[in-house]
Amino acid sequence: MAAGAQAVTLAEIAKLVDGELHGPESLGITGPSAIETASAGTIVFATSQEYLVQAEQSAAAALLLPRGLSSSAKPFINVDQPKIAFMRLLQDAVRPLPLAPGRHPTAVIDPAATISSHAQVGAYAVVERGARIGAGCRIYPFAYIGEDCELGDNCVVYPHAVLYQSVRLGDGCIVHAGAVLGADGFGFVWDGKQQVKVPQIGAVSIGENCEIGALSAVDRAMVGETKIGAGTKLDNMVQVGHNAQIGEHGVIAAQAGISGSATIGDRVMIAGQAGVGDHISITSDVALAARTAAIQNINQPGEYIGIPAQPAASGKRAMLLFAKLPELFARLRKLERRVGD
Amino acid sequence: MAAGAQAVTLAEIAKLVDGELHGPESLGITGPSAIETASAGTIVFATSQEYLVQAEQSAAAALLLPRGLSSSAKPFINVDQPKIAFMRLLQDAVRPLPLAPGRHPTAVIDPAATISSHAQVGAYAVVERGARIGAGCRIYPFAYIGEDCELGDNCVVYPHAVLYQSVRLGDGCIVHAGAVLGADGFGFVWDGKQQVKVPQIGAVSIGENCEIGALSAVDRAMVGETKIGAGTKLDNMVQVGHNAQIGEHGVIAAQAGISGSATIGDRVMIAGQAGVGDHISITSDVALAARTAAIQNINQPGEYIGIPAQPAASGKRAMLLFAKLPELFARLRKLERRVGD
Amino acid sequence: MAAGAQAVTLAEIAKLVDGELHGPESLGITGPSAIETASAGTIVFATSQEYLVQAEQSAAAALLLPRGLSSSAKPFINVDQPKIAFMRLLQDAVRPLPLAPGRHPTAVIDPAATISSHAQVGAYAVVERGARIGAGCRIYPFAYIGEDCELGDNCVVYPHAVLYQSVRLGDGCIVHAGAVLGADGFGFVWDGKQQVKVPQIGAVSIGENCEIGALSAVDRAMVGETKIGAGTKLDNMVQVGHNAQIGEHGVIAAQAGISGSATIGDRVMIAGQAGVGDHISITSDVALAARTAAIQNINQPGEYIGIPAQPAASGKRAMLLFAKLPELFARLRKLERRVGD
Repeated sequence: MAAGAQAVTLAEIAKLVDGELHGPESLGITGPSAIETASAGTIVFATSQEYLVQAEQSAAAALLLPRGLSSSAKPFINVDQPKIAFMRLLQDAVRPLPLAPGRHPTAVIDPAATISSHAQVGAYAVVERGARIGAGCRIYPFAYIGEDCELGDNCVVYPHAVLYQSVRLGDGCIVHAGAVLGADGFGFVWDGKQQVKVPQIGAVSIGENCEIGALSAVDRAMVGETKIGAGTKLDNMVQVGHNAQIGEHGVIAAQAGISGSATIGDRVMIAGQAGVGDHISITSDVALAARTAAIQNINQPGEYIGIPAQPAASGKRAMLLFAKLPELFARLRKLERRVGD
Repeated sequence: MAAGAQAVTLAEIAKLVDGELHGPESLGITGPSAIETASAGTIVFATSQEYLVQAEQSAAAALLLPRGLSSSAKPFINVDQPKIAFMRLLQDAVRPLPLAPGRHPTAVIDPAATISSHAQVGAYAVVERGARIGAGCRIYPFAYIGEDCELGDNCVVYPHAVLYQSVRLGDGCIVHAGAVLGADGFGFVWDGKQQVKVPQIGAVSIGENCEIGALSAVDRAMVGETKIGAGTKLDNMVQVGHNAQIGEHGVIAAQAGISGSATIGDRVMIAGQAGVGDHISITSDVALAARTAAIQNINQPGEYIGIPAQPAASGKRAMLLFAKLPELFARLRKLERRVGD
Repeated sequence: MAAGAQAVTLAEIAKLVDGELHGPESLGITGPSAIETASAGTIVFATSQEYLVQAEQSAAAALLLPRGLSSSAKPFINVDQPKIAFMRLLQDAVRPLPLAPGRHPTAVIDPAATISSHAQVGAYAVVERGARIGAGCRIYPFAYIGEDCELGDNCVVYPHAVLYQSVRLGDGCIVHAGAVLGADGFGFVWDGKQQVKVPQIGAVSIGENCEIGALSAVDRAMVGETKIGAGTKLDNMVQVGHNAQIGEHGVIAAQAGISGSATIGDRVMIAGQAGVGDHISITSDVALAARTAAIQNINQPGEYIGIPAQPAASGKRAMLLFAKLPELFARLRKLERRVGD
């Protein structure tokens, strides 16, 4: 149902989302869209009366509504959970970037690499010796899969992603364009005259079903491995330093930075532009607000905010009071004068 | 007049900038330069007596001066606006990166792509099916122009830029090296056990005469489109989240981050490392200082600063007082002791 | 001694690090590792009794210890400086990414480029006219070495790095994957209707033995050159604006941003996500803590912290007091009530 795709009928959509159709079965729908930007011929979802009103005023051709809600203005489908049904439609509409089956003739593949016959390797990809690529993998143009890298099944590596050496991806990982996995960790020793490079010989290990955003970097360990646990998702331009250990099912938003040797538990949410200091330890089930700087260990689950990070309730209060500093100083001066009298 | 280029005469320069020559017509000038780093044979500009003194002491061979200012030390050209004249010389001196006419034999172009016969496509570029590239476009090596992308006329796409799918560039856009347009928006739903990816099927739309800096990313929308208005300039490493709507003629400096679904008006200036929260709305003619975090809507034009963003006047005062917190606490303690007596 | 490499004997290691062996000469060691993650067969170092206990409990096969320290649990080698000895082992274990000698047949090299016969150029690299590449250079796949770029001897350019034009690297530089050197500086002039691009015709000059991290950017100067001094190391995603002048032997951590025309002295350490404002000057031997924003000149060596940057001692105190703002306001209110009585 993507742009340019064939329209499907409302009846087919009702079947796909296991919903109850109230409207013409043969009505053609071009795809899912959002209420605010709905174009003619699309289907939108509304979860409440308030959104229903907006949806009815939109250009959409049909609505996904929770059971109990109905529209007299537009055809609709009642479903248990409109959001989930909508996601089902998105899944149906998404088109993978084009990639021919097999190996493109221009791909440069070392004879000592092992690539599943069910993997696809695009134009101008380079796969080095000792690399192993599992079934169902899609390696897009200009990807560099370095020596001894191992990709599980069904991984997607987008154009221009670089895996240096000894980078392991579990099944179902997605690596977006321009991401760099396995570059040298940033380690130097001052010898009195200059910074001497500490060689970085370790690996990168990324669990299954992880997503690495565009232009993100995960450095290789000095020794051992830099690790990201299964199911953890990184947004764009996220930096992960050498030997960092990140748990499972985390979410790290754009431009956040995780310093070297940091240890982060499971289900940790790190918002945009936040930072975690080197060797800092953060327990599971912690959420760091945007721009927060975790420079001390966090041992209690919960929300944190600020520079340095503090529990969200007091941190937000401190942040609001910051703006009142001029008032505070004025009041203090006034008091001093009165007491001085 | 670039390094290595033929020198031009002072008379030719005077003609180019529509200025009045005071000096030898045939003096050869190798190019424009800055006062601080001027090398012999170059021409510099000075807008005041103070800069004139510096310019005369520099190694430059000649000066661009406003009418009314003159030099007894070096040949000079009087012009209405020295800065504008200097920019004219820069325009004359700039050399585009080399690119042969037509399509390089190693470019992989899908037969279902439409490329103007007046466009240039470099070595190892990939252009996918349904892509349309207008006249005068320069596509540099390793660029990836994905499925159904549309480039207007005279766009420049530098090496290693990636346009995923359904990315539209208006006429005259510049996309710098390593920029990634159209990667998946960062959307997940927690299902109780794991983060489930919300498919991202939307587009990216960039108006005419925009510039996207090196290693910047503009994510595709979930549905609908992520939009950047005509004339808006992004510096390096700028992140623009899915469904963000940025107005016209804005300037966004390096490492700033615009979260998903943010709405930003026209002529908004966002300084380096600043951030705009998701779903935040910022009206036109706003300037955010460096590192500012806009986490509430901004409805009034003007300058803002701080975390969270506040009007610049009070925000700067609060920032200065922050450094005085130790003094403040000391004074408070002193007062408490006196009042306690 | 890398993963998969042949084991070496303990005697060979003792000789390599100039140490005194206490244990079986023929014991095979697979490589160096860290105490926390040591696997069987590896060698670790310990600098004190406390670490010795941990090392003895690890799976490591042998220990590097300072003279005067000994182990009854595991074979060990006494050396003058265990850390330095360990680095020596890392140097021995590190394996460069594979690259065939000479020029890969798919490399596109302009006839007017000059490449040492002792340099290696990988698959799908592009080298433009006027470029000069010294002996011992290793240019990895997809690197773009633009017009008139000059690389000294023994430089390494990793996959997907881009050098636009007139970028000079001194001997022994390392440029990591995705780094972009020489993109246009970010300069525009508002003409009343739109932002007009100021052409950027300058160069980038990087001294010998510098390292540029993955996905970092150093913009070309407007005129003159953007300069990084010998021995300075940049981590990943570091932004350096046009005409910035950075001294020698500095260390700039990930996601830091150096604005245009900033001037930074020698041996300056800039921690992660810190920023330096445009035209700001920082003297030599300064250290900026993580997230610090230097928006005024810094003329005294020392440590600085905060937004804006202040000397570390008072800055840290102010930062700690920030969290106490709610308490401060409460105490002030209490005082006001008492004094008001």
